[in-house]
Amino acid sequence: MQLLKDRIMKDGTVRPGNILKVDSFLNHQMDIDLFNEIGKEFYRRFADCPITKIITVEASGIGIACITAQYFHVPVIFAKKSLTLNLDGDLYTTKVDSFTHKKTYNVVLSKKFLTPEDHVLLIDDFLANGCALQGLIDIVQKAGAVLEGAGIVIEKGFQDGGRRIRDMGVRLESLCIIDTMTEDALTFR
Amino acid sequence: MQLLKDRIMKDGTVRPGNILKVDSFLNHQMDIDLFNEIGKEFYRRFADCPITKIITVEASGIGIACITAQYFHVPVIFAKKSLTLNLDGDLYTTKVDSFTHKKTYNVVLSKKFLTPEDHVLLIDDFLANGCALQGLIDIVQKAGAVLEGAGIVIEKGFQDGGRRIRDMGVRLESLCIIDTMTEDALTFR
Repeated sequence: MQLLKDRIMKDGTVRPGNILKVDSFLNHQMDIDLFNEIGKEFYRRFADCPITKIITVEASGIGIACITAQYFHVPVIFAKKSLTLNLDGDLYTTKVDSFTHKKTYNVVLSKKFLTPEDHVLLIDDFLANGCALQGLIDIVQKAGAVLEGAGIVIEKGFQDGGRRIRDMGVRLESLCIIDTMTEDALTFR
Repeated sequence: MQLLKDRIMKDGTVRPGNILKVDSFLNHQMDIDLFNEIGKEFYRRFADCPITKIITVEASGIGIACITAQYFHVPVIFAKKSLTLNLDGDLYTTKVDSFTHKKTYNVVLSKKFLTPEDHVLLIDDFLANGCALQGLIDIVQKAGAVLEGAGIVIEKGFQDGGRRIRDMGVRLESLCIIDTMTEDALTFR
């Protein structure tokens, strides 16, 4: 998606530790006009799928998921992060290792909102090692729902999350894939 | 806002401890068509204000803020919750006591996104004791920005947050105010 690549080149900055800062338009301050273009593009790519629910995980995926949902005319569910394991039987729960925050947390979603009749599109802002996305896939599988695919805004192609998710047979659409990234240069696939 | 009151009466449930569960349409699963009506109503109420930024706090305010921002044509910033105090000088920081989660956390927002030129509308899903909203007001004041007002979806009128915020002179618009709430009955102001 050229508009997105242009914006990353213009406003993104690379920090030590393979961190791409895009907090001026994607995951702290949010450019809603750009989100609408992102939403349209996800719809274009998944228009052939009978999506009934969009699922994301808090917090930075929520805005993109909500704007995108307008094009699919479906509800959004955001899975919640919890450090404590809630043993409430009404929740789907999965464990996610966060490399960014150096801890393991539980991701939970109420069972009543996801059933085998649902066709799910997962949405998130970033894909790096893929742990968060694998957690959401695990929840969709536990619910017996149909996973139609996953839409990612920025995939770090030099980390192995994308490969692992695609190897699972998941239809993964990343709007841009970064192949190399240093403080001086950034290349897209 | 009648549509919202009707939806609360239809799908909301009251749990012990003054908890109103609206997770089927507002803050876990999110009804985006309803969010659009909420966004239009916030725009109708604040159309006379020269809003330049909408600010909310993660996580459940983000979706409402993003959908609402489409009517104002402005960016959204979501303040982040952090249990550790980041001493980065580039952040506005304020302390918030969470009664729901029984802990104190820091709410942070990058200084580069909020300046004295900004006119801010705060958006959140719930107002009860008002601690989260007061934290956001504190950040706006630290930035020297103009606080145009705050838009709340559901105010618990039997807790004192709304009164305290209004007593500060803040223009507070709640789309519905719950005056009394038991497991059998719920009344709106």
